[in-house]
Amino acid sequence: MTARPLPSRLGVVAAAGSIPLAVCEAALTQGIEIFVVALKGQADPEIARFPHRWVRLGEVGGLLGALRGAKCNDVVIVGALKRPDLWRIGVDLGFVRHLPTILSLTRGGDDTILKRVVRFFEGQGFNVRGAHEIAPSLLAPAGPCGTHSPNAEHEQDIACGLALLKALGTFDVGQAVVVARGHVLAIEAAEGTDEMLKRCGALRQWGKRGRAGVLIKAPKPGQELRVDMPVVGPRTVEIAVESGLAGIAVMSGEVMIADQAEAVRLADRNEFFLTGIDRAAWAAAGPPSL
Amino acid sequence: MTARPLPSRLGVVAAAGSIPLAVCEAALTQGIEIFVVALKGQADPEIARFPHRWVRLGEVGGLLGALRGAKCNDVVIVGALKRPDLWRIGVDLGFVRHLPTILSLTRGGDDTILKRVVRFFEGQGFNVRGAHEIAPSLLAPAGPCGTHSPNAEHEQDIACGLALLKALGTFDVGQAVVVARGHVLAIEAAEGTDEMLKRCGALRQWGKRGRAGVLIKAPKPGQELRVDMPVVGPRTVEIAVESGLAGIAVMSGEVMIADQAEAVRLADRNEFFLTGIDRAAWAAAGPPSL
Repeated sequence: MTARPLPSRLGVVAAAGSIPLAVCEAALTQGIEIFVVALKGQADPEIARFPHRWVRLGEVGGLLGALRGAKCNDVVIVGALKRPDLWRIGVDLGFVRHLPTILSLTRGGDDTILKRVVRFFEGQGFNVRGAHEIAPSLLAPAGPCGTHSPNAEHEQDIACGLALLKALGTFDVGQAVVVARGHVLAIEAAEGTDEMLKRCGALRQWGKRGRAGVLIKAPKPGQELRVDMPVVGPRTVEIAVESGLAGIAVMSGEVMIADQAEAVRLADRNEFFLTGIDRAAWAAAGPPSL
Repeated sequence: MTARPLPSRLGVVAAAGSIPLAVCEAALTQGIEIFVVALKGQADPEIARFPHRWVRLGEVGGLLGALRGAKCNDVVIVGALKRPDLWRIGVDLGFVRHLPTILSLTRGGDDTILKRVVRFFEGQGFNVRGAHEIAPSLLAPAGPCGTHSPNAEHEQDIACGLALLKALGTFDVGQAVVVARGHVLAIEAAEGTDEMLKRCGALRQWGKRGRAGVLIKAPKPGQELRVDMPVVGPRTVEIAVESGLAGIAVMSGEVMIADQAEAVRLADRNEFFLTGIDRAAWAAAGPPSL
């Protein structure tokens, strides 16, 4: 994460969730002028309180034109992408012109796709900035965020989870696992963290002695953190609590916590920990011996 | 797999599914006398056509006594273990006597538990044999079982899946993954192969151009194959077909196919492949480059 000087103007391509709003607010606080290109059916309607234009996902020409019209050389592409209805993406001439690139995006894993999105914007002359460059307070800190901390058992589960994520690193799959008392309960691939968490509740029928198990989440090695940083938020805490887990541990500085205040409030209320893993733990993580 | 001479008498500890029946039949065909200790609530009632005694899962003394009474020095422990109702396992004096060992079984991953089960029986003076030693026809062959074979795309998915399973080898987690056109759709941990397959259907909404994706299943390195060989069967084929997959590839000689005739019939009828992976492919499997 090299610290580049902040731009004076910033284009924000906003998809779903609260993080685009947080980025806009952080930019304004720092005196950065912003223009939002809000993706229809994706972005929170709240985004309309900032200077903006709505475009459909298929309006590639419209999107590029809006950013150029607002004289934004620097852009942040931020927010979750909900599965679009392919019949309603509203393609324009820009979409057709860039079709070969867009089609090539649909091949390969998620990680590859997002790297290509960055390359596409860079090829169009934009500097692609990470949301965390503009709003570093979104990043998970090192250590506990709320009043609860992992105990020795949880620390062991975290170490196991980190080693597992490290082993999965080259496969372009999900960046999250659940480990409970030394058992790997679930590994995320394409289903997403929430879906993975939901199945953990059912898997604990034999071992329901209070809360147990930790969600461990970290980026893949080489992951494009500018557009694809892993995120947890209040909903993640909620599902993890419902599934009987004891806490969430995310890589500090490389995972964002959306609505951190609300996430911490939910964690505290449920005697649940939400903690940032020190980078040194990742470096030290190794597979268990057979 | 060292080829030990077959015993003249064999005790069969039978849990759920059709494989215990197949082992009994294979033993009789080879002139081996058998005595079945059938686990209540687990074993197929069909098992009663062989010389047998029913015991509850908690009747450890009864189980050991039945095997000794039938003068079986060699035992096969075979079949799937359905989650027992802990209030109905019917503990006896043998259970209480062996309680420290039994409690120690409940710690650690599945793999560790099954290795301890083998050690427990060995400690009681029994030779623990693998079901496949008695019924080698249960083992997946090398190459296709039915009329359909993997194409080049499927072979790539299989290679990716093998590499992923190899990377997971030291973690004592599930031994199955689903890979579709280079994407890792799902990784099995504690939920079981069927549950993992079921979620793959929902993950393919964007890419529904005919069948795609392969279930790849192989044992973990160091897995106790005598009591814990991975199994696929007709139900696996059925769920994989429903989930839109193109085929199943299992490690030849180290995965059992239950009801192979029925599994192949289902596969053929659905233009689905069921194939055995050559051991050389496992040796050659490596992680993808970043």
